[in-house]
Formats: sequence, C-alpha cells, structure tokens
Amino acid sequence: MKKRIGILTSGGDCPGLNAAIRAVAKSAYNKMDVEIIGINDGFKGLINKDYKIMKPEDFSGILTRGGTILGTARTPFKKMRKIEEDNVDKVKAMVINYNALALDVLVVLGGNGTHKNANLLREEGLNIIALPKTIDNDIWGTDLTFGFHSAVDIATDVIDRIHTTADSHDRVMLVELMGNKAGWLTLYSGVAGGADVVLIPEIPFTIENVLSALKERYNNGKNFSILAIAEGARTQEEALMTRKEFKKHRRNLKDPSISFSLAQEISSRLGFETRVTIPGHQQRGGAPTSYDRVLATQFGAHAIELIEKNQFGYTVALENNKIVSKPLEEVAGKLKTVNLDNPLIQAGRLVGTSFGD
Amino acid sequence: MKKRIGILTSGGDCPGLNAAIRAVAKSAYNKMDVEIIGINDGFKGLINKDYKIMKPEDFSGILTRGGTILGTARTPFKKMRKIEEDNVDKVKAMVINYNALALDVLVVLGGNGTHKNANLLREEGLNIIALPKTIDNDIWGTDLTFGFHSAVDIATDVIDRIHTTADSHDRVMLVELMGNKAGWLTLYSGVAGGADVVLIPEIPFTIENVLSALKERYNNGKNFSILAIAEGARTQEEALMTRKEFKKHRRNLKDPSISFSLAQEISSRLGFETRVTIPGHQQRGGAPTSYDRVLATQFGAHAIELIEKNQFGYTVALENNKIVSKPLEEVAGKLKTVNLDNPLIQAGRLVGTSFGD
Amino acid sequence: MKKRIGILTSGGDCPGLNAAIRAVAKSAYNKMDVEIIGINDGFKGLINKDYKIMKPEDFSGILTRGGTILGTARTPFKKMRKIEEDNVDKVKAMVINYNALALDVLVVLGGNGTHKNANLLREEGLNIIALPKTIDNDIWGTDLTFGFHSAVDIATDVIDRIHTTADSHDRVMLVELMGNKAGWLTLYSGVAGGADVVLIPEIPFTIENVLSALKERYNNGKNFSILAIAEGARTQEEALMTRKEFKKHRRNLKDPSISFSLAQEISSRLGFETRVTIPGHQQRGGAPTSYDRVLATQFGAHAIELIEKNQFGYTVALENNKIVSKPLEEVAGKLKTVNLDNPLIQAGRLVGTSFGD
Amino acid sequence: MKKRIGILTSGGDCPGLNAAIRAVAKSAYNKMDVEIIGINDGFKGLINKDYKIMKPEDFSGILTRGGTILGTARTPFKKMRKIEEDNVDKVKAMVINYNALALDVLVVLGGNGTHKNANLLREEGLNIIALPKTIDNDIWGTDLTFGFHSAVDIATDVIDRIHTTADSHDRVMLVELMGNKAGWLTLYSGVAGGADVVLIPEIPFTIENVLSALKERYNNGKNFSILAIAEGARTQEEALMTRKEFKKHRRNLKDPSISFSLAQEISSRLGFETRVTIPGHQQRGGAPTSYDRVLATQFGAHAIELIEKNQFGYTVALENNKIVSKPLEEVAGKLKTVNLDNPLIQAGRLVGTSFGD
Repeated sequence: MKKRIGILTSGGDCPGLNAAIRAVAKSAYNKMDVEIIGINDGFKGLINKDYKIMKPEDFSGILTRGGTILGTARTPFKKMRKIEEDNVDKVKAMVINYNALALDVLVVLGGNGTHKNANLLREEGLNIIALPKTIDNDIWGTDLTFGFHSAVDIATDVIDRIHTTADSHDRVMLVELMGNKAGWLTLYSGVAGGADVVLIPEIPFTIENVLSALKERYNNGKNFSILAIAEGARTQEEALMTRKEFKKHRRNLKDPSISFSLAQEISSRLGFETRVTIPGHQQRGGAPTSYDRVLATQFGAHAIELIEKNQFGYTVALENNKIVSKPLEEVAGKLKTVNLDNPLIQAGRLVGTSFGD
Repeated sequence: MKKRIGILTSGGDCPGLNAAIRAVAKSAYNKMDVEIIGINDGFKGLINKDYKIMKPEDFSGILTRGGTILGTARTPFKKMRKIEEDNVDKVKAMVINYNALALDVLVVLGGNGTHKNANLLREEGLNIIALPKTIDNDIWGTDLTFGFHSAVDIATDVIDRIHTTADSHDRVMLVELMGNKAGWLTLYSGVAGGADVVLIPEIPFTIENVLSALKERYNNGKNFSILAIAEGARTQEEALMTRKEFKKHRRNLKDPSISFSLAQEISSRLGFETRVTIPGHQQRGGAPTSYDRVLATQFGAHAIELIEKNQFGYTVALENNKIVSKPLEEVAGKLKTVNLDNPLIQAGRLVGTSFGD
Repeated sequence: MKKRIGILTSGGDCPGLNAAIRAVAKSAYNKMDVEIIGINDGFKGLINKDYKIMKPEDFSGILTRGGTILGTARTPFKKMRKIEEDNVDKVKAMVINYNALALDVLVVLGGNGTHKNANLLREEGLNIIALPKTIDNDIWGTDLTFGFHSAVDIATDVIDRIHTTADSHDRVMLVELMGNKAGWLTLYSGVAGGADVVLIPEIPFTIENVLSALKERYNNGKNFSILAIAEGARTQEEALMTRKEFKKHRRNLKDPSISFSLAQEISSRLGFETRVTIPGHQQRGGAPTSYDRVLATQFGAHAIELIEKNQFGYTVALENNKIVSKPLEEVAGKLKTVNLDNPLIQAGRLVGTSFGD
Repeated sequence: MKKRIGILTSGGDCPGLNAAIRAVAKSAYNKMDVEIIGINDGFKGLINKDYKIMKPEDFSGILTRGGTILGTARTPFKKMRKIEEDNVDKVKAMVINYNALALDVLVVLGGNGTHKNANLLREEGLNIIALPKTIDNDIWGTDLTFGFHSAVDIATDVIDRIHTTADSHDRVMLVELMGNKAGWLTLYSGVAGGADVVLIPEIPFTIENVLSALKERYNNGKNFSILAIAEGARTQEEALMTRKEFKKHRRNLKDPSISFSLAQEISSRLGFETRVTIPGHQQRGGAPTSYDRVLATQFGAHAIELIEKNQFGYTVALENNKIVSKPLEEVAGKLKTVNLDNPLIQAGRLVGTSFGD
C-alpha cells in the first residue's frame, strides 16, 4: 500500500526550504511506494484542509529556488498559542484533517514556533518529523539550521558594500540585521564582514563602550567604522528591564530602531557622520548557498530514513558533523542563543572587534 | 617638462570611481611624461591643499574595488553654494592651491553638484576635465553615468530576493530605492526585477491607482505584489505643492518615508500584509559591474585624449554609443530626469507594470 | 477573433530568453485577445508540429530564469542550410504546420542562423518577427543583443578570479572565451577584467607581439599577466589562410585549442609558468543580468507593438538607445564583427592593453 | 622585547589566505608587542631570505581579497621532497635564515605539502605553527580547511549555469572539477548543484554504471543530465593499476582528461549530445565566502593563542565545531579522503545521485 506523506512549511521563509522539500520527495520516491500530499501555507492549510496531491515533476528544478513552493504563513502559530489556553478547536481541526487525508506521517519544515506546534500535534498522537530551518540558527538541539549560512552570506555582502562607501566618506555606518533573541546572524556576518563593533542580544552593551571603541579606532588613524547590530541588541540597562518595561522604553526613544538611536548618540557625542542601513527581508530571500543546499538535502533525506524505520516524533539535527535526530519534546520551546564562550566571540575579540561590553 | 595632472573624486561615492581613476592614470603614463597629484577627499582637499604625489603602483589592482582611493566628501559642495553669494574665499583657496601645485589640469570625477563646482573653477580660468559618475544617472548631456548600472544590479538583486519571500508569504513588499529627483535607478531595477508597481518622481501617482493595481493583481489570482519606489516618489497632490509645503506635508505623515505611508494605506485599506525594505547605502558600494568598468575605462582614457589636445572645460559623455565631450557650461546645473516617453516606461506599461498614474 | 501567436527559441541558448518570452506574452495578453502557441525545441518543433498551447501562468516567475522554457536546438538549422540547395521539404513542412496551427504570426528568438532561417520563412510568405539574442553580440543591425552583457559579466568574473591566483603565483594565465568569428565578448570582458593581452578574431596577432607585451610587463616589475583569448583568435599568418588551410593548420598543432599552443610558446620561450582556463558553457547559463532583462523586456514588448500594427518581416533592434525594427532581409546572413576603430579598442590601447598586433 | 613572528603562505593559493593572515596579524598586535616578518613566495622566500617587515596597515582591507599578499610558490616543495633523500641544503638554508631573522616562531599557511615541509622544519628545532588551507579539504586532522567552501560555491555556481543550458538543449553536460586524490569538492558541489552523476577518486566507477544511470533518467522522461567529475576520478579497472600503469593508460586515451573520454563514450554509445566544461583555476580565485572568512579568522586568532602559550609544532584544526590544535607530526604526510560511509554520499544516493559504482 502506498505510504501517504504530508509535507508543509511554516513560519518565516528562508533559503533552502525547496531544497529540503526536494530531498524529502526524491528520497521518498526512491525508497518507497509513496503519495506526497503538499499542505498549502503551513498549518493554516492543515486547519483548512487546503492541499494538493504532488507529482514527481513538481519537485524538479526547485533545488536552487528561494522561498517555498508550498507557501507558508506565520499567523496561525500565534493563534495556536492562544489555543493552548482557551480552546483546542484548531489543533482538533488539524488532527481531523490529518486523519481525513489518511496521512502516515506529516513532515514539517520550520523554526522555533513550528517545532512547538509540531510537538503539540505529536502529543495528539500524530506521526511527525520536523526539519529545522531558520535564518536565525536558534533552534535547540542542532548545531546549524538550513537558511542560516545563506543569510550570513547576504548580510556579509551588505557589510562588504557598506565598507567601501564608509571608507570613501569617513563615515560611521550602522548595519541592522535580523535577530531578535539570538545574535548568530549578526555575529557571523559581523566577523565575516570585518565589522569593528558587533552588538548582539546575548551581550548587552553600553553606549560608552561603543563610543570608546570608535574613538580608539579614530585615534589609531582609521577614518571610518562599521557596526553590525542585531535588531534585538540591547544595552546593559535595558537587559535588566522586564519585557514590558523594555518595550515601553524603546517606544519612548521615538527612533524606529536601536540603530537609529545609536547613530544619533554617535553623531551628537563624537561628531562623526553616520548612516543606518537595514537590509530587512532580503536576508531571507533568493537561492540558497551551496552550504545550505547540502545541509537541506541531508536533512530531507534523513527524514525519509526515519520514516522508513517508523521513527516519529523527531526533528532532524546536525551534531558534530553528523546527521542525527532528536525527540521533538526535548527540542520544542527551547531557544539556542550564543554562548558567551563561543569560539567566534573569542576570535572576534582577538582580532579587535568590540562587542560593546 | 612633466605634465602635472591633479585628480579628485567628489560627492557620493559609487562603483567605478577607481576604475575611472585607473584609466586616467594608466592612459596618462602611457601617453605622456606625467606627474599625477591625488587630491584627498574631494574639493575639501583642494581647499586645504591636502594631496599626495601618486606613483604608478598606486593604480594597480584597483579596477574592481568599490569606493575611491582618493576619498570623497559631500559637505564642501553645500558650502560652496553659499560662497557664490556672500564670499569667494573657498573658490579662491582652490585657485591658489591649483597654482601652488602647478597643475596643468584638474580631472574631477563627480555628479551634478561636482559638475556645478567644476564649472565654477573653469570660470576662474582653471583647466578642468570632468567625468560623470553617479548611481542616479541624472547628469545632463550623457546617456549614462558610470556607477548607474552597478546600482541597478544591486537594486535588482534586492528585488529578486524580496520576490521569493513575497511569493511564499502572500505579501505586498515595498522596496524603497535611492533617487530623490530622478527615477532612473528605480525604473531600471523595477522593470528588471519584475516589480508590479514602479513609482518615480517624474510620474506623480495617486494612492487610488496603486491600490487598484494591487486589487487587480489579486483578482487575477496573484497572491503577492512588489512595489519599487524611488525615495523621491510623490503623489499627484504633492506634485502641486511648493518644495516647502511638500517637506512640511511629509513631516506631518510621521512615517520615516513614503514607503511606510504607502504600506500603511495598503494594509489598512486592502487588508494585505506589507513589508518595507530599504537597501540604502549598499546601492553605492562594492565592485563595479563589467558594464561600469568598461564605461569608466572609456571615460578615463578619453579624459587623457582631451588633455593631450589641450581641450579643457569639458565633461566626458556617452552619446549614442560614442564617447564624446560636452562643454561644462552647457551641462552644469542641469538635471537629466526620465522623459515620460522613455521606451522603458512604454515597455513597462506593455508588460503590465503600473506607474500609479 | 483571437490572434494566434506562435513563439520559438532557436540556436544556442543564452541568458534573457525567458525574459523576452515573458515580455512577448505579457504584452500580448495586455493588448489583445490572444492565444499563444509555444513551439518546442526551435524550428525542429515547427517541422514536427511539436507544440503546446500556453497559459498566462506559464509565463509567471520566468523573468530571472536561465535557459528557455520552450527548449531549443541547433541541428535543424544546419540541415536547413542544405535544404536551400537540394530540397525544400523542411521549409515546406514548416509552412504547412504554420498554416495548420492557424498562426497569425511567428515570433522567433535567435542568433545569426535563426535570422537566416526566419528570413527563409518570410520569403515563403509567413508573418515573422525576430528577436536578436546571442552571447556573441554579432547580429547585424542591432547595437546589442540580449544575452551578451550577461556573458560579459560571467567572463569578467572568471578573469577576476584568475587574477588573484595569477598574482599570488607569478603566473601567466590564459582565459579562452567563446566567440569564433566575433570578438565582442572577449573585448568587453578583457577590458572589464583588466586583461593585459586581448586577442580577438578581428585583430590577427603575432606571437612575437604577445611575447614582447609580456616581457615588457615583466620588465616593469609586474609578476603576472592575464590573456583573454577568443576561441576564434588567429595569428596574422593564419589570417591569410583559406578556411580549409586554417582548419588543417590548427589540427596539426595537436593542442586542443589556440590557448594551449600559445601557453606552450610562452612557457618555452619566456620561461613563465602558464595555466589555461576555459570557462566554456557556463558563459551561456544562469540568470540574466538586470541589463539583459531590461533589453529583453523592451525587445519582447516591441514585438507585440509591431504585431498590433501588422508589421511583419522585421527583427527588433537597439539603435542609439532606441528600440527600432529592421527588415529581416537586410539583416539575414550578415555578421556584425568588431570594427578596428571601435572606441573600446582605442580605450584598451590607451590603458595599456596589447591586442597582439 | 618584541616577539618576532614570521609568516608565509605556500602551495596553491585559495580564498581565505589573506583573511587568515589578517587574523594572525590583528590578534598579534592586540595581544603582544610584536614585529611581523612577511616571507615572500612561500618557502622559496625563506630559502632566499626574501622578506619584508610588515606594518599594521599592510593588513587593512585584505579580509575580502583573494590570493595572498605574501605571494606563494609550489616548486620548492617538490624539490624539498628530494632533499629528504639526498641533501639537506635547502632545509639548512631555511634554518639559517630563520635564525638570522631572529624569529620566535614561523606561521605557515598551506596544504598537505606545506604541512609536510612544516614538519621537516619542526624536526630541525624551529618553532612552527601551521594553518590548514586548501580547496581540496584533504588535510588530515581537521574537519575543514579554509578555501574549501569558497571553491564549493564557485563549482556549484558553474554547475548551476550549466544546468540551464543543459535543460534547454537536451544535452549531457560534464563538469570536471579540481581534486586529484580527494573528491570533497566534487562531492559537495555535485550534491549542491543537483548533479545526476558524481564521480570521485574514492569511488571507482564503471562506464556501464554511468551509462545506465543516464539511460534511466532518459527513460524517466528527463531530457538532460549533469555529471560532476573530479579530475582524479577513475574506473574500477584503473583503480587496480599501479600509479605508473594508470598514467600510461591515461596517456594512451589521447583525450586531454577523463571527462573527454567519458563524453566520447556517452555520445557514441547512447547518442546523446555532450559538452565538457573545465572551470580550472577559477576554483581557487576571488573573495572568500563568509564561511571561509569566519573559519580563517578563527584559525588565525588561534595561532596567536598558541604562540602566547609557547605551544609550537602544531597545526590549527576544526574538530566537532571547536577550534583545536594537532601535533604536526601526527598530521604531516597523511591525506584525508572521503569515507565511503560519509553521510553526504548516503544522502546523495537517497536523492537519486549515481556515483557510478
């Protein structure tokens, strides 16, 4: 009898989703008699029984394509959090549709929120395999998520471009990168791009430290500086606030983001000309790099190996260069942030990068 | 006797400056007995007699490099405009230093402001050759400026990346590109990137038209839309305002830019999810494309041909695929904006792009 | 009544074909009641009545894609040349199928051979519009073909990469680029990449001149050199041979190509370490650059303007920055090679490039 | 007293050398009172006492640059192998010059050969730290070498470009990549590029297997195929030969490389049109990717940590995501090839890649 595999992508998109979808599908067609059911637009599609029966040719030529051929959505996840408390209708709807579609397993590609939801469905008795994707690299249990290194390449390219104009104009340039709770993307692209100051949520900074790093460069004859700033970077003062106080504090600053506040301080107190660049959503778009295609291919192929062995309730992970699997219940709800003894922080400090602490 | 050629880069930087500098230098060393004097940081360097005697090896390996090895500055130009009215000290200083450095000619690489300044110096009797560079492509008298096509490539790449994420998320994405008075960059990258709506200063738009273009796409089954918006784009209402009224009007909108106002309208009136991306200064950075290297090389080489023939007071230009020269006095102070009968606007309309008019 | 437009791509593929196909289709759907018939694999598809009825969604998302969604083939063209002499069966078959498909017009995207074939069909009374594509830029009557600047970008990128390794290793590096009869691609990428020697078919070289250019660089303290060589480059001696003598002469050299022969001479007579790189078919692949997307879009949109006005028997062309049309009979069978007074050759010589002549 | 650190780069160049040099230098200037002595052109420079005293500004702006600012050479290594047997003059010369330059340590960046040489110098009592660089990723003791992932990116980009043209033309395209003994580069870029057949030295193939993989694709309705072939790939028959027999066997084939022989077989026995592309030295050139910049920065910074602790005779390595050091004597002379149970081979097989075995 044909195995029926459902597949959906959920949460913010990132490069490599299609490469992983392709690997799941190609491996499935190679190893088993299978019908693949593509669920449209993430969990929303499962709730609404919005799906398409896929054919082998649907997975041709998508290895290099950005985005996701299945569509994705963020909203349902937020609503699902509420569901946990006050009603279970939506989870119920998903269980009903999983059964109505006669799925043997549901493969779910997503980030932290998605893993949490995937675990909810597992608790309801569904067969779930999750694949960790996100440009934030903040999923617990895996050394790397696909999408991350593609985003690092894009962010580094932005810093490289900013570099030449900074140098020509004797300016202090601030580049604000994605990453609210985890600073991986800013840390990696900051070091790769040779940023002079790198500010990430895990290392609260003081404005004084940032200013003195800039002054020191100036005193050493450097005519420009580059700051790579995670959108979630915060001062040591802010780090002591509750989430609520913090949000209120930021709103009072009136600047659209931390980078603008900081630029303001730098120009008013040091007299340097500043510019802020926010590459925004380009960090999640376009073709995946070779690194992410390799990783996504390995993750997708491993999902089928698990399915073959009827091992469900896992997320696929990279651990010490090996492709492994981790129980969803261990991973769900946890965040992997940058440790302060991360070797890249050490290396960054050694080559002279200031982390503002 | 050695010919003494001064060279400076002024105004906002752009890809191709070093390629042009290299072409000037290599052609000069090949054709004449020459000493090249690099003036630091644009006209500011000439005012302050801040310069370096260049050697042939200074021009090696710079063809591909972004920025300018001579440095540049914007400020002096603004101050020079004031000088025109109330005193001539700075222009005088430049004339004095030109003579003190015993220059035979000053080669000036820059945009509109620079051409205006270059013409001021020409009127003082200095031998000037200008080379038109800018990502805005708005210099009168030349079909193209170097830097432009590199910026188009970068902006198109941003739109491409945004495309994949827009499609995956059913979103309306707004990309705000550089260009205050001229829409060349937004027009070219908008068409190249397949933007559904392109808004440029030369074609005032109405919000109603933009909304109905988006609704039409939605009715045709398209789940997402891309808008490419020049930072200087304005509504038909705004187009009737004086500069002063316009600025006041925009300040009252509270949004940091036109794109945010528009995003607000789209999401509140059509209910679409929107995101704004502002690539900012990355549009001026990084290595020049092959196109700009070829153009910059031709412009730089032509400058030396003019100098050989003692033809001064010109800017080099591209006209109907030929490298020609135009009197500075004809070019200075004029702006080349997009004509409404530009064939690319026609082609854009034909393939279904809305210009909001 | 619906207008029936056939469309096919023929000859070697190049970046921008899909962008042009999209522009033809989108403009047609916008301007007229139309049915678009995609002919598969070039003229071969027309001969064999191998086609598909296209739908609007077939043209979505293809702007950036390399290759051609219609497929292409070279072979039939060669056979058609024979047809001219000894029989007309294949041309007849095409006329029959054109009529059987009830086409109002056939839009043909291709290079020199394709234009020749298109003209044959025109002579048979068919309504033909041609669009000039090729990485060689050698189609008579148009300043530029789409595909060309994308190939220049790729070739320049190869030269850039070779540059860093040449410099590090004190080597003479030879890069052999596409172009049998026309040297446009090698000329543009050679100048853009800063090649020290550029050899193109239009400027026969002598080995002595190449060697002395390399020696001169060495004497000036340069530790490496880069040669950009068109595959059709030939010595002054070879230039005097008949096509037959020339081919025999080359076969006797035993080296797989001109670059290897030249590398051999350089290393044996000057003692420099040499390496040959042949990027090959990567020069025709991948996404078109923004430049080519804009050009292909304009060409494709213009085709529909001609069709609207019932103007047939033309190829679309770029002339002095304007999109125009040229009678096929004027263009077919002619080759546009590089003129010796091309301004880029002049500029190249000025910056010190040797053309080996 | 100032610490005197010598630094040299040896063997084939690769992206990331300058990034590593910069990290060594910046970390040294930050942590100690230091004089850095740049040895020119690898071991040759040490033999000939060809060096320059470096200044901090020499290391500015080189993070992104391909090649090596110190120059490199391959030849001396080959000669040194002979030295081991018949005389020690060159090693002696290096010891003498190391002492004459009063070096406290010599940092050596290179591949397998370099590590062997570095170990020879260690045995002579010199303080040596090695950093593993190579596009081949074949250095024993480290999970990754810098330069590798940049080369994978370049090779993958070539395969991507070939892909679009293969598809349009119904062709079998063969891409021959660097790697004589180790297939890492071909394996990674082959999987990343979605090659249908991947041939590496570690997995001897049979022509029959390759042909039947191609036939199977054809029978499944695929109109084209891509082969990624390491230059050192060999048949199962060849794998049984001695090195000498193998070389003789290949010479008799007359084709310039394995790819051409294979293309010949494919076209004559299956009737498919074939094309061979050999990207060659572009695989080692250009700016390092963000991945390699990060790795090179960590390696370079770690070298200074070892020097601070007076730990000499080590090479820096990546092991399970940690930066560690390994005794040179353990690493020298060993080759890290692809294990047959490498997870990427498994994943490749799962998604349908043929390895020809």
